[in-house]
Amino acid sequence: MKRLFLLITAVLLVAACNNSRPIKVPVPARPAGQVNVLGLTCDPLETVRIGVVGLGMRGEDAVVRLSYVPGAVVTALCDIVPERVTASQQALAGLGKPAAREYTGADDAWKALCEQEDLDLVYICTDWSHHVPVALYAMNHGKHVAVEVPAAGTLEDIWALVNTAERTRKHCIMLENCCYDFFELSTLAMVQSGAIGEPIHAEGAYLHNLDPYWTRYQGNWRLQENQKHRGDLYPTHGLGPVCQVLNIHRGDRMKTLVAMDTEPFNGGRLSERLYDKPDETFAAGDQTCTLIRTEKGKTILVEHCVMTPRPYSRLYQVVGTDGYAAKYPVPMLCFREFKEGQDPAHSLGKEKVYRNELARERLAQYQSPILTPELEALAKEVGGHGGMDYIMDYRMIYCLRNGLPMDIDVYDLAEWCCVTPLSRLSIENGNRPVEVPDFTRGAWNQKEGFSYAFAE
Amino acid sequence: MKRLFLLITAVLLVAACNNSRPIKVPVPARPAGQVNVLGLTCDPLETVRIGVVGLGMRGEDAVVRLSYVPGAVVTALCDIVPERVTASQQALAGLGKPAAREYTGADDAWKALCEQEDLDLVYICTDWSHHVPVALYAMNHGKHVAVEVPAAGTLEDIWALVNTAERTRKHCIMLENCCYDFFELSTLAMVQSGAIGEPIHAEGAYLHNLDPYWTRYQGNWRLQENQKHRGDLYPTHGLGPVCQVLNIHRGDRMKTLVAMDTEPFNGGRLSERLYDKPDETFAAGDQTCTLIRTEKGKTILVEHCVMTPRPYSRLYQVVGTDGYAAKYPVPMLCFREFKEGQDPAHSLGKEKVYRNELARERLAQYQSPILTPELEALAKEVGGHGGMDYIMDYRMIYCLRNGLPMDIDVYDLAEWCCVTPLSRLSIENGNRPVEVPDFTRGAWNQKEGFSYAFAE
Repeated sequence: MKRLFLLITAVLLVAACNNSRPIKVPVPARPAGQVNVLGLTCDPLETVRIGVVGLGMRGEDAVVRLSYVPGAVVTALCDIVPERVTASQQALAGLGKPAAREYTGADDAWKALCEQEDLDLVYICTDWSHHVPVALYAMNHGKHVAVEVPAAGTLEDIWALVNTAERTRKHCIMLENCCYDFFELSTLAMVQSGAIGEPIHAEGAYLHNLDPYWTRYQGNWRLQENQKHRGDLYPTHGLGPVCQVLNIHRGDRMKTLVAMDTEPFNGGRLSERLYDKPDETFAAGDQTCTLIRTEKGKTILVEHCVMTPRPYSRLYQVVGTDGYAAKYPVPMLCFREFKEGQDPAHSLGKEKVYRNELARERLAQYQSPILTPELEALAKEVGGHGGMDYIMDYRMIYCLRNGLPMDIDVYDLAEWCCVTPLSRLSIENGNRPVEVPDFTRGAWNQKEGFSYAFAE
Repeated sequence: MKRLFLLITAVLLVAACNNSRPIKVPVPARPAGQVNVLGLTCDPLETVRIGVVGLGMRGEDAVVRLSYVPGAVVTALCDIVPERVTASQQALAGLGKPAAREYTGADDAWKALCEQEDLDLVYICTDWSHHVPVALYAMNHGKHVAVEVPAAGTLEDIWALVNTAERTRKHCIMLENCCYDFFELSTLAMVQSGAIGEPIHAEGAYLHNLDPYWTRYQGNWRLQENQKHRGDLYPTHGLGPVCQVLNIHRGDRMKTLVAMDTEPFNGGRLSERLYDKPDETFAAGDQTCTLIRTEKGKTILVEHCVMTPRPYSRLYQVVGTDGYAAKYPVPMLCFREFKEGQDPAHSLGKEKVYRNELARERLAQYQSPILTPELEALAKEVGGHGGMDYIMDYRMIYCLRNGLPMDIDVYDLAEWCCVTPLSRLSIENGNRPVEVPDFTRGAWNQKEGFSYAFAE
């Protein structure tokens, strides 16, 4: 009898194990009394008073850009290095702007900035390790936050940002500038027009030889992140624009993820090149590929490679049932070519391909609703990666001033950032599939399709 | 006591299940008395007498091409459709070649062809379902075989080809013409010269809108394969050339595979377009992506999409520690740019990119050892996908006439074809990782690096 019981138990256990479910990633219960912040709107702000934390590689330019955005005023500057604060102060003066309050000297000087009363938005351009502490502290002190990419690198931090945004009802924005590049904006408009049918597969990436840049990061913090961690450490530039195309948490959601990386062939040699000291324990593979499947059965490929000499690329490729668009390495559009008077429903048309200038001309037929000729001209004049940084800042300030929902909400932040810890989880478990948590906790199909908000 | 035993058993079982090992794919024991056929050489053939089976889309052209290859003579023709045999017979006559023996009428007319005494090579261009039966029957009747791609679609068939090739000591070649395209040949030479350092990641694909072609396959057999099966049904064009670059079973081997596909968004609509009858059970996803990791920690991405209007591409991308090469959508080469007198070992050079004509010029510095100006000129004159089909045929006949090992052996065939059943296995098990069997059964690192054989 006992033997039979033992046998049955064994069989059941084996059966339970041989199933093909992905690694379960638990969704923590929403704290009592909180509701989601989908479509969150706050009181309109006549003027948006901004404190910029971190005035290095990104922050210094942000101070200048924000000075050109209507209704935005930089009232506080913070950096651990006093010279950087002085430099940005001088930049403001040079633009005829009032002096901002200065916070510097201590590693936690940003706390006093977040506590400042007459401040609406904390704009965070620090190294990755400070993103979350500053963002949480700022929201807890009643400020909206805008965080550079990637906003967070662990599931704990991501959930902390989601929960804090839901509790404080403050906007928690990620500064994903690639969502505002001209090709991406027009392609999103083209896809939403139905011109390439249903988008079913998309590719995004950060393929950028960082060799000439490693030493520019204070204390080599960026290289150290790669030394410490496997997985795609920088997924948002590639993911952001394609998630908007695929309506992620706006009718569809990322469901399953699997990742694979190479050995750190160059990574291990990097520290030898930089410090004349080899690093046997370098973690991040030179190339990392991640595949994601959505609830609706669409797929996303995300690639990361910053360790080898190669042409810069974010891929940005959208495969649709009736057409195709890709930005890198050359702009390409493709549509099914219908014969005269042919019924599209029964057509088996050959493809018609547009490249380079022809693609740009064809794409120009699709105008992003957020772009006016004036904005585009000003953006290109002010600059910031050719203008996309300015459009990003402009849209954020516009929405804050008009009390509108943000283009990029805290769930976008969570979804685009979670690929870092989840790809690591998959890789460290032999490339096993991993469940992507629903950061909206059940509301991913509440809104139908991605859209921008506008004032009446 | 029994309870303790039960408890321990349960714990052990759970432990055994919670590990992260991929799906095990058993390697059948090698039949007694057989050894591997790595580097197999056979008696030189003054003239190679060829029987072509299947004279449709690929075979008809092969008959003409082979007539231009020195030392090759088509002595037998077989197709179930008599008119096709007649057409190829007329083609031979038009080229001043002697008439070939004809086999037609019955579905198994190919058996008599394989039994023909005065025949050295059976060249198989049938639909996929006949590849393996004809190849096995031909080898068992003492003939070498050359099989169109993909040679086989199931692990059983792949192992049958491997075991039969090992038992009969006959060459079992796969006609992977993309290994002989000019860009691929030069890039392989460039990689072997060390110009891009160690190749660490490669991408290959078959991205081709087949809408205009579906109805050309007799009885729609190709569409039916897509209706019946998930997984990458056509991986060899993408895989072949990059596996040669990565020295697969010549010092490295494919170890782990994971795949993901989209829903058959267009697939389901295809039969409605073709037959005015929707197909609710269409199997193959419109886009399938497969990631493969090698023993040495390198990765390969393989993509398959034949269902949407998009630019033709086989990707063919090679990422190296010191450089990069890609063929699609535009030829690109990239190298680390060293400053004057800089020590390459410590250099953190920026990348220098060559595109289009500049890339072709740069690549022209690397000459494939199998290409002579005469061969290249003749190949382009005879044609067949721009010449690569002729170079493929020429190399095969050259090796057979000189008693040399083949460029593509039965283990290449097995490795490139196994992605079809293994990607299906991964997809049907929730994108779980799958072990790639070692088809050489332990000899994958016996030869160091891919190379071509030449007569003294």
